[in-house]
Amino acid sequence: MSSIKDINPQKGMRDILPKQVELRNFVSGSILAVYKKYGFLQIETPSLEDINLLSNGEGGENEKMLFKVLKRGEKLDLNENQDENSLSDMGLRYDLTVPLCRFYANNKAQLPQTFKVIQFGDVWRAERPQKGRFRQFKQCDIDIIGVKDVSAEAELILATSEALLSIGFKDFKIKINDRRILSAIVKYCGFEESDYNKIFIILDKLAKIGIDGIEQELQESTFSVDSVNKIIEIIKKITEGQITTATIKNIIKDIDESALKDLNFVIDTVGKQASDKYSIVLDISLVRGMGYYTGQIFEIEADNYGTSIAGGGRYDNLIGRFLDGVVIPACGFSIGFERVISILEEQNFQIPKTQNKIVLLYSEEDIKNMEDVFKTAQTLRESGNTVLTELKSKNLKAQLDKVMEQGFDSFAIFSKDKKVEIKSLSQK
Amino acid sequence: MSSIKDINPQKGMRDILPKQVELRNFVSGSILAVYKKYGFLQIETPSLEDINLLSNGEGGENEKMLFKVLKRGEKLDLNENQDENSLSDMGLRYDLTVPLCRFYANNKAQLPQTFKVIQFGDVWRAERPQKGRFRQFKQCDIDIIGVKDVSAEAELILATSEALLSIGFKDFKIKINDRRILSAIVKYCGFEESDYNKIFIILDKLAKIGIDGIEQELQESTFSVDSVNKIIEIIKKITEGQITTATIKNIIKDIDESALKDLNFVIDTVGKQASDKYSIVLDISLVRGMGYYTGQIFEIEADNYGTSIAGGGRYDNLIGRFLDGVVIPACGFSIGFERVISILEEQNFQIPKTQNKIVLLYSEEDIKNMEDVFKTAQTLRESGNTVLTELKSKNLKAQLDKVMEQGFDSFAIFSKDKKVEIKSLSQK
Repeated sequence: MSSIKDINPQKGMRDILPKQVELRNFVSGSILAVYKKYGFLQIETPSLEDINLLSNGEGGENEKMLFKVLKRGEKLDLNENQDENSLSDMGLRYDLTVPLCRFYANNKAQLPQTFKVIQFGDVWRAERPQKGRFRQFKQCDIDIIGVKDVSAEAELILATSEALLSIGFKDFKIKINDRRILSAIVKYCGFEESDYNKIFIILDKLAKIGIDGIEQELQESTFSVDSVNKIIEIIKKITEGQITTATIKNIIKDIDESALKDLNFVIDTVGKQASDKYSIVLDISLVRGMGYYTGQIFEIEADNYGTSIAGGGRYDNLIGRFLDGVVIPACGFSIGFERVISILEEQNFQIPKTQNKIVLLYSEEDIKNMEDVFKTAQTLRESGNTVLTELKSKNLKAQLDKVMEQGFDSFAIFSKDKKVEIKSLSQK
Repeated sequence: MSSIKDINPQKGMRDILPKQVELRNFVSGSILAVYKKYGFLQIETPSLEDINLLSNGEGGENEKMLFKVLKRGEKLDLNENQDENSLSDMGLRYDLTVPLCRFYANNKAQLPQTFKVIQFGDVWRAERPQKGRFRQFKQCDIDIIGVKDVSAEAELILATSEALLSIGFKDFKIKINDRRILSAIVKYCGFEESDYNKIFIILDKLAKIGIDGIEQELQESTFSVDSVNKIIEIIKKITEGQITTATIKNIIKDIDESALKDLNFVIDTVGKQASDKYSIVLDISLVRGMGYYTGQIFEIEADNYGTSIAGGGRYDNLIGRFLDGVVIPACGFSIGFERVISILEEQNFQIPKTQNKIVLLYSEEDIKNMEDVFKTAQTLRESGNTVLTELKSKNLKAQLDKVMEQGFDSFAIFSKDKKVEIKSLSQK
């Protein structure tokens, strides 16, 4: 048998060690438990979807980062097919929202009228790998399908906030805006409606590349110089606080009044529940980079960490694309699971202890009576402990250090003749 | 925006509905809880691995069913590359064992000496779709790395049996054999050692294609006619019960005595714990289709269902391929998660109820006071209930039927002025 040299995960992929999985399971378990208390139902969609679905233009920058799967068998014609698209029929999903819309269209008859749904699963993006960014990562989404008023947005925000509180986050800030306001601004600057999505994707990079970066990207596109100058001026004023919700109506007369009313409703409803645990604020510089949003958009920023740990919004027109244009109102909120995990790891977060974890050591001699070793372990398990059986090594200290690193707290030495004595690993 | 016509999952893939996810979560939760009580530690590996790793010959038939991922960016040279392998650099994993070996080699320094490990995750195989077979499915594996004696096999079998008991399986039968015995038989028939794996893969199909099918496949290969006739005769005698462990030594003199001793040890140790809940039997016709097994192999058959619901064995040489030949003993047991789920679904298995699931209905009028609706829901949640809020539809009966289908058991109508009254959905 030949030897295998490359034992590393592929570029941007990673092995997840036991202590990390334990934290991840605790966090996902806590979040899902909150969502389930709200009556949300969990679904799963396949990792692979039709390549055409994944490159239909709704995914923004993510569509450029598709992992494409090679056609198989007769379908793969290596002589005829010379371009990338004819070689591939499927891709790995880059988010959970586009597959959810396909799922809803496909299973509508079996789903409740108001569908409140949870998804927790992997997505894949061929991003340039960098610290804390991976090419396979988990997302945790909730969506409400079938509710057209903003009580849906309010509930998504309340449930997500409660989920974050349950894993120890506090004092976080929810920023909220509405695409209808952004559209009014962009319209006011004289841009074409067909360009709105392209502009939103550029504006979304404000925090990353700054106002100068945005100005440059807009200038490099084919937009009119006048429109670009106008919007840069407005954004500057917004970020400097010279334009607020109260004053924006003075500049842009035909701003959607109901958008402002809806924002007040959500800010008010959430704000009252938030009390002093977290806060919600209007931020008219908030854009979000997906093409499909139609109404409110929101993000959660963890205090002291700057970056967003959750984001979402309303996308009333997306599901309709799968249902011959029948409009189905929908909105969703996605927790950046990996970001949450890395913050908790930085904070050295400790999972609450619920049981003793004992390692039961036996000798070479005891293997003959393995049955008794197993029985002793089983008796300890029955009284609520986790019990690992392990052959006692010559270097007992090193062995116990290793199991302690994995979260075990006690040990015992098996004896055929007498009751085992459980000792704390920290006093060993 | 264009309309999307194809709303079905891709061939062999599937959408998993809320009730199904609920069962799947209950089953995986129950199994993992048992394994964790045994001190097994959970890890995760990436879905995508190096294409060379996935086509090294150890995966048997599974390697023919790889989903290959197209190279990206500059690496994809469409003019130069004309064959499948030069177009692809990664593949989706077809099992969890090969990735585990790479993981262990890569992370050895951080792992305990005896590594008892759990994996629960998706694997992908481009199989011909058929009833109950999917191209993406979940596997649930435990492995013990670093234990050379068969106490490891015994523990794997005991833990897996307890996991199956915890989800209501009983009276199942564990079949056990040893590759060392099979090797002795094959050697006795005069086959070359380099052909053993190929022969095991064919013999493994006995249940599927019968003795005649096996004879035909062996004849179609380049083996000597004499060897083929000899092995077919022995297999016939084994299946007819004319050859047993007690008598095999009379025919094949140089059979490995320690293999027989080890089998007795495991059958004895497991048998005593099994008492009348399940059984363990020697089955010298058991082969298993992977190339990498070196010692004991085992399978669990659910009573009345015929097919195997779990399988595994020892693979002492596989990890060494990742560690320049250093032999690391290892064995594993994998539960066929999808098979288990489909059996439970056929049996109409009911998840034990742990809380009330209430739908709280509100009117259009109440949306103005959504804050109060949310507060009422939250109060009910705080006393341990799951509470879904939903706008009351005109057709109340149809609406309640829908939520009942999703597992809700009670409902209440919100009122601004008085305490809500919770009613059972079955008495509605």
